[in-house]
Amino acid sequence: MDCIFCRIILDKKDILFENDLAVAFYDAFPVSQGHTLIIPKRHIETYFDLNSDEIKAIFDLSNKVKNHLDDLYHPDGYNIGFNAGVAAGQSVMHCHMHVIPRYKGDQENPRGGLRKVVKINHPYHNTNK
Amino acid sequence: MDCIFCRIILDKKDILFENDLAVAFYDAFPVSQGHTLIIPKRHIETYFDLNSDEIKAIFDLSNKVKNHLDDLYHPDGYNIGFNAGVAAGQSVMHCHMHVIPRYKGDQENPRGGLRKVVKINHPYHNTNK
Repeated sequence: MDCIFCRIILDKKDILFENDLAVAFYDAFPVSQGHTLIIPKRHIETYFDLNSDEIKAIFDLSNKVKNHLDDLYHPDGYNIGFNAGVAAGQSVMHCHMHVIPRYKGDQENPRGGLRKVVKINHPYHNTNK
Repeated sequence: MDCIFCRIILDKKDILFENDLAVAFYDAFPVSQGHTLIIPKRHIETYFDLNSDEIKAIFDLSNKVKNHLDDLYHPDGYNIGFNAGVAAGQSVMHCHMHVIPRYKGDQENPRGGLRKVVKINHPYHNTNK
């Protein structure tokens, strides 16, 4: 058992929500209050290895997570998504969805959101350097 | 017809892939070569307004887009996701998935990927300032 995410599933602790094919838990290195990860139970490497049932299961949990975090923290928005591959910033090689609550004022200029994974010379990108 | 994404659907031009519930087209302000958007045909504001059939349709198209971009540009990874709400950087208020191909060396330190939507003092975040 080398995969830290498979270990979370096996140990059944620290799990926030669960269904047949996926589990949700708080990110160990949150970038905002409530930052949560949702993973398929099956050990697959990236988003593109998911099957249709798994994406549905992850989608269902993401809605539960959103309602939960809305009640707890009242964020103003969310970034939702996957890094697929080391070149895209993935560091744990078990597919995981980030659910990142966003709060007004948490960045000087939030415009562009996850476009900013790539820094280029564009109006979306000329702040928060 | 105030929505520029509804206009793309209506005009049926510049569409890369399509199925019953979703369409894919190249981003007008790409942050990397091949940057593509996938939207539900129904005008809804955010990811959390999607229904199960729509997420499945978007997922199916994202796999087609990935295969297409792999053939064309041979990227090394992908960031995939949604900005939900202005506070999260959403600028067009018609739900859209970003499919952002990533290339080795396109950032000094890609680690963290879409975690970097929020800049905090963390090893994931101390480069690409």
